[in-house]
Amino acid sequence: MAKPIHISLDVMGGDSGAEVVLPGAEIALLRHPDTRFLLFGHEKVVLPLLEKYPRVRDASTFHHCDVSVAMDAKPSQALKQGRWRSSMWRSIEAVKTGDADVAVSAGNTGALMAMSKFCLRTMANIERPAIAAIWPTTRGESVVLDVGATIGADAQQLIDFAILGGAMARALFGIEKPTVGLLNIGVEEVKGLEEVRTAGRLLKETPLRSFTYAGFVEGDDLGKGTVDVVVTEGFAGNIALKTAEGTAKQIGGYLRSAMQRTLMARLGYLLARSAFDRLREKMDPRKVNGGVFLGLNGIVIKSHGGTDAEGFASAIGLAYDMVRNELLHKIAQDLIHYHRGRFATPADQTEGES
Amino acid sequence: MAKPIHISLDVMGGDSGAEVVLPGAEIALLRHPDTRFLLFGHEKVVLPLLEKYPRVRDASTFHHCDVSVAMDAKPSQALKQGRWRSSMWRSIEAVKTGDADVAVSAGNTGALMAMSKFCLRTMANIERPAIAAIWPTTRGESVVLDVGATIGADAQQLIDFAILGGAMARALFGIEKPTVGLLNIGVEEVKGLEEVRTAGRLLKETPLRSFTYAGFVEGDDLGKGTVDVVVTEGFAGNIALKTAEGTAKQIGGYLRSAMQRTLMARLGYLLARSAFDRLREKMDPRKVNGGVFLGLNGIVIKSHGGTDAEGFASAIGLAYDMVRNELLHKIAQDLIHYHRGRFATPADQTEGES
Repeated sequence: MAKPIHISLDVMGGDSGAEVVLPGAEIALLRHPDTRFLLFGHEKVVLPLLEKYPRVRDASTFHHCDVSVAMDAKPSQALKQGRWRSSMWRSIEAVKTGDADVAVSAGNTGALMAMSKFCLRTMANIERPAIAAIWPTTRGESVVLDVGATIGADAQQLIDFAILGGAMARALFGIEKPTVGLLNIGVEEVKGLEEVRTAGRLLKETPLRSFTYAGFVEGDDLGKGTVDVVVTEGFAGNIALKTAEGTAKQIGGYLRSAMQRTLMARLGYLLARSAFDRLREKMDPRKVNGGVFLGLNGIVIKSHGGTDAEGFASAIGLAYDMVRNELLHKIAQDLIHYHRGRFATPADQTEGES
Repeated sequence: MAKPIHISLDVMGGDSGAEVVLPGAEIALLRHPDTRFLLFGHEKVVLPLLEKYPRVRDASTFHHCDVSVAMDAKPSQALKQGRWRSSMWRSIEAVKTGDADVAVSAGNTGALMAMSKFCLRTMANIERPAIAAIWPTTRGESVVLDVGATIGADAQQLIDFAILGGAMARALFGIEKPTVGLLNIGVEEVKGLEEVRTAGRLLKETPLRSFTYAGFVEGDDLGKGTVDVVVTEGFAGNIALKTAEGTAKQIGGYLRSAMQRTLMARLGYLLARSAFDRLREKMDPRKVNGGVFLGLNGIVIKSHGGTDAEGFASAIGLAYDMVRNELLHKIAQDLIHYHRGRFATPADQTEGES
C-alpha cells in the first residue's frame, strides 16, 4: 500500500474556522482513508469540536497554537503577529520540516502567501510564486495562473508560470504534454502587452519538453478550454477569475427568477428538476475550491474563506491529488528540462531528446 | 420637432458588410424615424441592395468609396491604404466635417480606432481615447471602460476614463451623478495596482461635480452592477469583457445540454419555454452591441464585426441616443468642471458650486 499522505490544516482559517475545517476533513477522509492530518489551532476551540469527528481525531495529531491570523489582517501585520506561532504559520512550517506533505488553509490570501513565501522560500530559478486556479470549461477543466499572487509579470516570470502551470496540469489531468496559452488581447502576434509578446516569442524559440506552447488566447478561451493551461500576470488573472464567478452568479440569478415568474415556468422547472440539479452541480463553485501556491519549496492550498465543509473537502482533495501525483517533483523536473533546453546547443538537444 | 440625427455608416464594415448594415439601418429607422443616414461604401455592392430597403434609401445620401478596409488589416496598413478614401475613413470624416453627428462601423477595431484618432484627434486634456462597453448587470446596465483601446494606463489616464465614462453614464442612463469605481484586486486601499491606487487617492482629494467616486471594485462587481461606471485600463478591461462573454456562452451551453438530456427535462423546457425565451433575451449579446469611442472630437461607435441586422440596429440606436443626449457636450462640460475643481482654491470651489 502507498504511504499515507500527511496534510496540515490551519483549523482556525476561514470565515467559520473549525466549524468548516473539521467536517470538511471528515468528508475528505472518507474519500481518501489513507490521509493523516496535522491539525493546528487553539485547543479551546478545536478539541471540544474534534470529539464530534472521531474519524478525523483518530487520523490526526493536534498542535495547539495561541495565535490565529485575522481574515482582515494585512500581510505585514499577519507576519509580525503570527510568525512562528499562529495556526497558519505552523501548518505551513509542517511542510517545511517534512512533517506534512502539503498545507491547506482557508485563511486570508495575502497573509497565507506572505507566510508561505517567508517560510518555504521560492524554488531555485523561480523569482515569484503564483496562485493557480482550476477553471471549469466546456471541455473539462483548465489551470489558470496567476490569479492574484503578484501584480504585473515580465516575460521570464510568465515563462516560469507556464512551466509551473504545465507541471500542475500534468499532475492534475494526467496529460503528458499539456497545451499552454498566454492570455492576451487579440491573438495576432503584433497585439497586446509587450511582456506577453516577448514571452510568446521566447516560448516559440525554446525547445519545450513538458508542455506545448499554443500561442495567445483571449478571455473567451478560458471558458472554452482552448488550452490546458492559461498563463497571465496576477492583476488580469484575478479580474478574469472574479468576473467569471460574478457572471455565473448573475446568470444563475436570471435563471432562478425566470423560472419563478409564471405557473407554467414553475411547472416546467419541477419537471426538469433533475436537469437543473445537474446544471447546479456543474456550476457549483465548491467543487473546484482551492488555489494552489506554485513556485515555493512546498505546496500550500488556499481554500475560499467563505466555503462550507463540502468546499473545504474539495480543497483537501486537491491537496491530496497534488501530493499523490508528485506535483513538486514534476515542477523540479520541468524546470531542469526547460533551463537545460534553453542553454542547449543543437547537439545537447538531440541528446536530451533521446 | 427636434432636429434629425445624422448618422454616417461604414456600409462595408463587418463580416457581412451591406447585408447586415442596410437591414440594420432599416430596423433602426423604424425605431427612430428622425434619423438620416450617410452611407459610405462601394456603389456596386451597396446600390443594388439599397433598392431592397426603400425606407433607408429615402432617408440616406450615398457616397461611393473605392476602398474597403479588410477585417484583418493591421491598423498601420489600414491607415496607409484606407486613409482619405475608404468607407471607414469617410464615415469618420463626415463626423469631423459636421455632416454627420456620429459614425457607426462594424469594421476592424484596431483600424477604426487608428483612423478615428488620426481623423478626429483626442480632445483637449485627454491623452488617450478609450472604448466604453455597456455591461448588462443584475441591476440594469453599467458603463465599463477601457475595454481595449489602450494597454496600461497611468493614474491621470484612469481619471480621464472616469470623467468620460461618467459623462456617458449621464447621457445613457439619465442619472445626474453616476457612481464610478476603479477596477482593482481587493477593495482595501493598500492593495492592487500602483496606478489604480494613485488614481483612487486623487479622485478622493478632488471635488467632483459630475460623478461620485465609489472606491475600488472587483471583477465580480461588474455583473452585480455595484457602480454605474467601472474604470480600468484596456488590457484587464478587454480580458474581463471577453471572459464574461465566454462564461455566458459556456453556461448557456450547459443549460441547453441539460434541457435536452431526458424526456422530462425536454417536457419541462417546453412548459417553461417563455421563461427560457426571456432568459435568452436577457442574455442576448446583440442588445448591448456597440463600443463607444470616447475622448475624441466626435463620437464613433464600433459594432461587433459578426453581428446581425438586429445587433447592428442596436449599435445605431446607441449612436442615436448618444447624440440625442448630448454626450460630447456632457464630456466637454465635465472635463471643464473637473479641471477647474482640481486647480481651484476653496473660494473658487464655492463659486463653482453656486
